[in-house]
Amino acid sequence: MSIAVTILGSSSAKPSSMGHPSAQVVNINEQYFLVDAGEGVQRQMARCGISALKLRAVFISHLHGDHLYGLFPLLSTLGLYGRRTPLRIYAPRPFGEMLEAFLRLCESDLPYTPEWVEVDTTKHQIIFENDTTEVWSLPLRHRVPTAGYLFRQKEPALNVKKFAIERYGLSVQQIVQAKRGEDVALESGEVLGNESITYRPYGALSYAYCSDTNYSARLARMVEGVDLLYHEATYAADMRKIAKERGHATTADAAKVAQMAGAGRLIIGHFSTRYRDLEPLLKEAQEIFPATELAREGETFVIEPNPRKQ
Amino acid sequence: MSIAVTILGSSSAKPSSMGHPSAQVVNINEQYFLVDAGEGVQRQMARCGISALKLRAVFISHLHGDHLYGLFPLLSTLGLYGRRTPLRIYAPRPFGEMLEAFLRLCESDLPYTPEWVEVDTTKHQIIFENDTTEVWSLPLRHRVPTAGYLFRQKEPALNVKKFAIERYGLSVQQIVQAKRGEDVALESGEVLGNESITYRPYGALSYAYCSDTNYSARLARMVEGVDLLYHEATYAADMRKIAKERGHATTADAAKVAQMAGAGRLIIGHFSTRYRDLEPLLKEAQEIFPATELAREGETFVIEPNPRKQ
Repeated sequence: MSIAVTILGSSSAKPSSMGHPSAQVVNINEQYFLVDAGEGVQRQMARCGISALKLRAVFISHLHGDHLYGLFPLLSTLGLYGRRTPLRIYAPRPFGEMLEAFLRLCESDLPYTPEWVEVDTTKHQIIFENDTTEVWSLPLRHRVPTAGYLFRQKEPALNVKKFAIERYGLSVQQIVQAKRGEDVALESGEVLGNESITYRPYGALSYAYCSDTNYSARLARMVEGVDLLYHEATYAADMRKIAKERGHATTADAAKVAQMAGAGRLIIGHFSTRYRDLEPLLKEAQEIFPATELAREGETFVIEPNPRKQ
Repeated sequence: MSIAVTILGSSSAKPSSMGHPSAQVVNINEQYFLVDAGEGVQRQMARCGISALKLRAVFISHLHGDHLYGLFPLLSTLGLYGRRTPLRIYAPRPFGEMLEAFLRLCESDLPYTPEWVEVDTTKHQIIFENDTTEVWSLPLRHRVPTAGYLFRQKEPALNVKKFAIERYGLSVQQIVQAKRGEDVALESGEVLGNESITYRPYGALSYAYCSDTNYSARLARMVEGVDLLYHEATYAADMRKIAKERGHATTADAAKVAQMAGAGRLIIGHFSTRYRDLEPLLKEAQEIFPATELAREGETFVIEPNPRKQ
């Protein structure tokens, strides 16, 4: 029931021999989601021991090359590996046109279908949902239409408190009723309120990916209470003006968003190649938000739910 | 006056964490040519200390992803780095459509122009020429239209033999005449044949890139006398049938082509990922053509001209 985020790359646009551009794998209950796909993403997945065949869906924040250009080679490879299941790719417009051109000109005989789902980067809404997981779009403020993504586990199913079963001698039928969230009427006529006899065995976790973006107080509100927050920090705090002009954030911006949101932990990344030593960036953020870590390639950040008492 | 070939990648299509797909930089008299551009090529160039801004032209053998998908991120980066000079890309059809879609959808504001030059993969002809260098297309036999490339230094300018200058007391004008390749008439009426008084200071070198291809005796004739030959060897000699079916060559095929062509040295590459240990492949080729080497990532193969005597 944990969430694990593996950093495949977190360098900014200008490539260097040091780091790979933005890409992450988010593993929620053994569902693997790729978030952004900078060049080299498939090789980085292999290095991190994550099989590309496991991918459940892809989320692309925006159509700048350093977040996108690794996707097409990956799609090609999934074909070589014989994927048959369609693969949904959530991305802003005009990704559909790019995909269409790619499939028509480069990969006309893929054995599976990559399906584009358009993301409206102006809206904060659910774009993906299944039994256990929701993904919400997060409008970001960059030079081109850009969305962050908020991954939320759904609340786990209700358990019935052991003492209630024993005290009231609940039948199997009554237990099922309680697990559905209903109140339970006893033979005596007494009605047990659902909340008094059930509990959630653990809390649902959440992770938000926010890159690339200017500082945004609105974003902080949208990710309120998030357990783990990735927020870009392309520049040091003294580069505030340049960050703002270029649609990026500083270390201080990222830390302030984490602080306002009441996040559990913060990961900063997407560092400009001008910074060889990242420790000063980390320190700047930690002064505002102590639970900050650097997005280092190959590292996996895991958050575990706290078991709840009955 | 040397030719240096740097291997940026020589793995075959299925990506692994081990090696990069096909890409090389050929440096002829400080002119840098990129030959094929598998994913990660720009990062590999950086690792090998070759500035992408130095690229003079790009030659793509065929439009399979493992020879191509690193090109688009590289074109994007050249824009970030402020390239202004047009960049010629020699590639078979329908590369032009891919480039058009890429420029329209992904990189509409590049500060330079990537220009496609169509390569007719059925013809062995000069496709690039300047004062010092020629590049010839080499029809290869693969599953899709594919061309190899033969890089030839032009013969260096004529020098006039020192003894001739002294013996006949040649004037500056007569020396210039001889350097132009003309015969020289002395005052005595005697005519000195150009060949008797001039020489080429060194031999012109040549390098041929042949990937991907079936064995071809015709290819061996086209690269006759080549100083350095890169020939793919996707499979070991015992996989001849599969190699043939898939449009690839074996170690033995590559070595036979080198032998028939009378090549100086052979580099084999484009190995299937099934081979973890490449030494057995090398030995197979060396049994037929001893001067064989493995294309290892990051390695540079240099050929130097032999100075010629007067």
